[in-house]
Amino acid sequence: MFFASDNTSGAPPEIMAALLNANEGYDRSYGNDRLMADVTARIRHIFEAPEAAIYLVATGTVANALAIATLTPPWGAVFCHRHAHIEMDECGAPEFYSAGAKLVLVDGPHGKMTPDALAQTLATTGASGVHGVQRGMLSITNVTEAGTVYTPAEIASLTKRAKAHNLPCHLDGARFANALVTLGCTPAEMTWKSGIDAVSFGGTKNGLLGVEAVIFFDPAHAWEFELRRKRAGHLFSKHRFLSAQMAAYLENDLWLTLATRANAMGQRLGQGIAALNSAALTHPTQANMVFANWERGGHARLQSAGAIYYDLRPQPDGRETARMVASWSTTEADVDQFLTALRG
Amino acid sequence: MFFASDNTSGAPPEIMAALLNANEGYDRSYGNDRLMADVTARIRHIFEAPEAAIYLVATGTVANALAIATLTPPWGAVFCHRHAHIEMDECGAPEFYSAGAKLVLVDGPHGKMTPDALAQTLATTGASGVHGVQRGMLSITNVTEAGTVYTPAEIASLTKRAKAHNLPCHLDGARFANALVTLGCTPAEMTWKSGIDAVSFGGTKNGLLGVEAVIFFDPAHAWEFELRRKRAGHLFSKHRFLSAQMAAYLENDLWLTLATRANAMGQRLGQGIAALNSAALTHPTQANMVFANWERGGHARLQSAGAIYYDLRPQPDGRETARMVASWSTTEADVDQFLTALRG
Amino acid sequence: MFFASDNTSGAPPEIMAALLNANEGYDRSYGNDRLMADVTARIRHIFEAPEAAIYLVATGTVANALAIATLTPPWGAVFCHRHAHIEMDECGAPEFYSAGAKLVLVDGPHGKMTPDALAQTLATTGASGVHGVQRGMLSITNVTEAGTVYTPAEIASLTKRAKAHNLPCHLDGARFANALVTLGCTPAEMTWKSGIDAVSFGGTKNGLLGVEAVIFFDPAHAWEFELRRKRAGHLFSKHRFLSAQMAAYLENDLWLTLATRANAMGQRLGQGIAALNSAALTHPTQANMVFANWERGGHARLQSAGAIYYDLRPQPDGRETARMVASWSTTEADVDQFLTALRG
Amino acid sequence: MFFASDNTSGAPPEIMAALLNANEGYDRSYGNDRLMADVTARIRHIFEAPEAAIYLVATGTVANALAIATLTPPWGAVFCHRHAHIEMDECGAPEFYSAGAKLVLVDGPHGKMTPDALAQTLATTGASGVHGVQRGMLSITNVTEAGTVYTPAEIASLTKRAKAHNLPCHLDGARFANALVTLGCTPAEMTWKSGIDAVSFGGTKNGLLGVEAVIFFDPAHAWEFELRRKRAGHLFSKHRFLSAQMAAYLENDLWLTLATRANAMGQRLGQGIAALNSAALTHPTQANMVFANWERGGHARLQSAGAIYYDLRPQPDGRETARMVASWSTTEADVDQFLTALRG
Repeated sequence: MFFASDNTSGAPPEIMAALLNANEGYDRSYGNDRLMADVTARIRHIFEAPEAAIYLVATGTVANALAIATLTPPWGAVFCHRHAHIEMDECGAPEFYSAGAKLVLVDGPHGKMTPDALAQTLATTGASGVHGVQRGMLSITNVTEAGTVYTPAEIASLTKRAKAHNLPCHLDGARFANALVTLGCTPAEMTWKSGIDAVSFGGTKNGLLGVEAVIFFDPAHAWEFELRRKRAGHLFSKHRFLSAQMAAYLENDLWLTLATRANAMGQRLGQGIAALNSAALTHPTQANMVFANWERGGHARLQSAGAIYYDLRPQPDGRETARMVASWSTTEADVDQFLTALRG
Repeated sequence: MFFASDNTSGAPPEIMAALLNANEGYDRSYGNDRLMADVTARIRHIFEAPEAAIYLVATGTVANALAIATLTPPWGAVFCHRHAHIEMDECGAPEFYSAGAKLVLVDGPHGKMTPDALAQTLATTGASGVHGVQRGMLSITNVTEAGTVYTPAEIASLTKRAKAHNLPCHLDGARFANALVTLGCTPAEMTWKSGIDAVSFGGTKNGLLGVEAVIFFDPAHAWEFELRRKRAGHLFSKHRFLSAQMAAYLENDLWLTLATRANAMGQRLGQGIAALNSAALTHPTQANMVFANWERGGHARLQSAGAIYYDLRPQPDGRETARMVASWSTTEADVDQFLTALRG
Repeated sequence: MFFASDNTSGAPPEIMAALLNANEGYDRSYGNDRLMADVTARIRHIFEAPEAAIYLVATGTVANALAIATLTPPWGAVFCHRHAHIEMDECGAPEFYSAGAKLVLVDGPHGKMTPDALAQTLATTGASGVHGVQRGMLSITNVTEAGTVYTPAEIASLTKRAKAHNLPCHLDGARFANALVTLGCTPAEMTWKSGIDAVSFGGTKNGLLGVEAVIFFDPAHAWEFELRRKRAGHLFSKHRFLSAQMAAYLENDLWLTLATRANAMGQRLGQGIAALNSAALTHPTQANMVFANWERGGHARLQSAGAIYYDLRPQPDGRETARMVASWSTTEADVDQFLTALRG
Repeated sequence: MFFASDNTSGAPPEIMAALLNANEGYDRSYGNDRLMADVTARIRHIFEAPEAAIYLVATGTVANALAIATLTPPWGAVFCHRHAHIEMDECGAPEFYSAGAKLVLVDGPHGKMTPDALAQTLATTGASGVHGVQRGMLSITNVTEAGTVYTPAEIASLTKRAKAHNLPCHLDGARFANALVTLGCTPAEMTWKSGIDAVSFGGTKNGLLGVEAVIFFDPAHAWEFELRRKRAGHLFSKHRFLSAQMAAYLENDLWLTLATRANAMGQRLGQGIAALNSAALTHPTQANMVFANWERGGHARLQSAGAIYYDLRPQPDGRETARMVASWSTTEADVDQFLTALRG
């Protein structure tokens, strides 16, 4: 019953097999490996973006931080949700990589910025000439930190506000596949057709050992990104091992299969909790993350049953709150065992 | 005949087996995995350093850059050889990570700083009070960029100069194992017993997919390093895959076996070239790297035979120059085939 | 009728005379001038801080940013009021100088953080280990951006919360003298006796051409600050001209005389506005800054009468809002003329 | 006998008078003062550059560092002479402001890069793709750190090499006026007609209290520069006091008059030393700086006579070496007294 995060899972056999294959013989280093050309072609095809510049890195934090540093100058404001991963969970990586850009926080329920809140924040930031930071860029997370999913229309309504100020728009897709499976739309619809200029296309949380792609739909950013990546020590010499993972991830829609499984387990868990009298969801379960609270005593029963998940701070009224994340390797038995323990 | 770099090789079967093993089941993320405790214990034992703080990252560039940023303030001078990897091949990563420290270059033949050159540079840097950068730290590379190896006594004679100014001393050990095998000394003798405070302990060039350890003999640097690593996006969520590689690398002296093989092939190649009338070594071959020049025509013959290596800029007299690197997977046949082609 | 800011005023004759005096003959450069020793002694005496390290710079922005960079590492959170100058009006200078520290915003009415709001923000920042930024420091502004004044007891109740986490505390005293005159306390009471570790001691808004002192009560920060100042290009070669201004500012309590005048004019203006039926103060007038709103039409009358001040965004109900700042050179006639025009 | 530096002098009466004038009444802050328009017009006229963007800052270090940060990305190499002020005397300000650009040092006698040395350094830097820093920009100093003066033809022959790689070219003109007086050419000839894109146009060493102009011949850099200046805390609120100095400096060719005087005194001193049997010039005296060595005993005589200058490290043969700088306020008596003391 491992629900702490989708990153406590390992990798599916297809990925391990790809690593073993890639290990045969010699290959060129630093991204010039044979498999990378395949990865580029696949991602361009999947995103209907034949010109896109595509790079691999090993962590979601650096995918976001390098994309942000490429899209905004140091004096730019990065508009994001108050609970965005880039604000809460990256130890200031965006500020570090951008040489001090300021994250300006936008409100909205269930982890989603509202267009009005964004418009208002845009209006009051960067309006004092040289004295304040300038409007820099927008960064949206999908799946959000609250486990909810922006629709393409919702994304478009945010990017439209940003583009009224000529701002580039970034999508933190650490759980891109999970969002896509929920939406049933195309990658293009969820990104550039909705105004997104750059994507952190996550693989690690959905079954890779550690690979994320950064996608720029406008290849004008390519060389700058390459230099930033190298300078950050994020260009792998044996890059073929990143390429191999990503190539296998995309082959035969493995990425979608994995996310479908994770989302199904998230739904099963969310519905199971919602059906309990003693428990309630605190955010709608729209992908593979479940946020809930329950009567006092739930933590004790779950933990003695061996459940692992995030024990969040209790509510003022004493109810216990928690975050559970399902992954590609979560089983129905895991979920049912969790529900049995919680029910008591 | 792949002699471009030791990073064009893959990984030996022991490493791949360790990855497969580590993939079983769930594990805690972000460095809290079960294998990391084992790695820490092993490295402390090997280095006879029971207090050392030890961290894993995925590239040599970031191992160096994070170590440097931890050891020197932004206004510090980093003394290193004119041809050091940190100066030549990291696209300014030390400057980036340290927020602008200045690399001050020290001369010396065959990739090795001389104590006199270091002493002179130390004397003239940081002597003008607040107006110039301050003396910050020393960084030594072993194996050097010229394929030579500093002895512990040579290291000590450099660190002694630095410590006269209270400077911390870093060792870039991207090819640590190759140097150690050449020297036949202990890791402690090559490092802290010779005045080294922090080590980039390379694994990638010697058979890992992408893992380097950073070792601080003084654990006071530990928490700062952890924050810098996270902030740089270099803390892996599925960290167990780094731990697994490093654990297997150290088990049964695999790391030394691999380096012994690479060095032997380097020696075979170096001696073979030196024995040719038409060719000469430009640096002594002391580990797995061979630098040579030869009469015009060598490149053409080698390349038509399929040899891959670095074609350096020709000498003024027209002789061709080259760099060849042997790895753990280089075979005697590879070397002999190279020599045959070169001989013509 | 110049009420746009206290920095639209010039300097009083004592300051200009001091500049002329300082211009005689030669003097040592870069802070080694004769007058600087005098400045240091005076400030130590005034602050009852015989060990304090004291430096001069030319702008308030850099006084704050250098103090912050000296007190917090790049991964530190700087706790400050949502409307603090360092957040709103310095174009990200704190982020630039600190290499990316994050300003974490604290709420509270009339420009003043409440201890509860600070305690809550402290509790939720830096509580996730390596994943989030760490608690770094506190920065308080006095006079606040809303023209209100923290009492020593209020300052102490904030610094107490910060010091429970071992955080250093900075006071942005761009209008230090104005606050002090309001409070009638000693500089020591307003600073180190209330838990403040470093002060931006402003002079420019209160009559200097451009000089602020940075004061560290713990001189351990001295050398780092000197290096940061030089590296930032803020060490003046002809430093004597800064020293001369500050020395004259402190002589015969000129600084307090100037602030008393400015505050009296602020009070006169605030009281005059409060007495109008058509107008109201939006923040209490506690020093030399007045925030007010009034019925539509006030702006037009004032501007046609030649009044210069900040025309802020109108209230939802259409009332006009404004900020007026009195300076040492504001006259009673200026104030009365303003009130006459506003009254209509 | 103050020959330590031209920045140990004060300001001529015209400058002090201008400050007093500028102090009358109120003026707009942050560079929007009335005098700044005048300064812009004057400098555009003097440089025959009607489109140039012009900004004032208070120190030469920041003029250089901000110009460099505006012209090169963090991964750019800044080519400069080995003894350039930006390398030796700014405590790493260029690295700080540029977020870690690397200064790459070029050799040449008497403080002047030779075109061949520059060409060779250009050829070997930035030639390894993403692995090394990229070619960024050229920075030339005139008057050089050795007191010599580049002719426009010499400048052009350097900028031509840089422009072959599309690099922008910066001139550090801390002693711009002294160079110009020596050359007898126009400011345009010394700058944009010779391939210079941006100039640090110094005033402080030539008689101002602390003002330098930064000039970009291509105004496309203007807004970025303004943001960088503000973010660095180098935008003065009472900017009129900078404008006033610069306006007076340019009026009636005061700047040229002052430099002419300083150069004449430099020449007198240089010729006087050269005429001594016991002394010799170590660099040609081409402006207001004199470098010399002399027999042992000179220092003792000079210092007991009250002469103040830089006592450099003695030569291997024991001869004493020194740097003397004349300023606008140096008198013939100062020079002759110095020569008398040296002669013994």
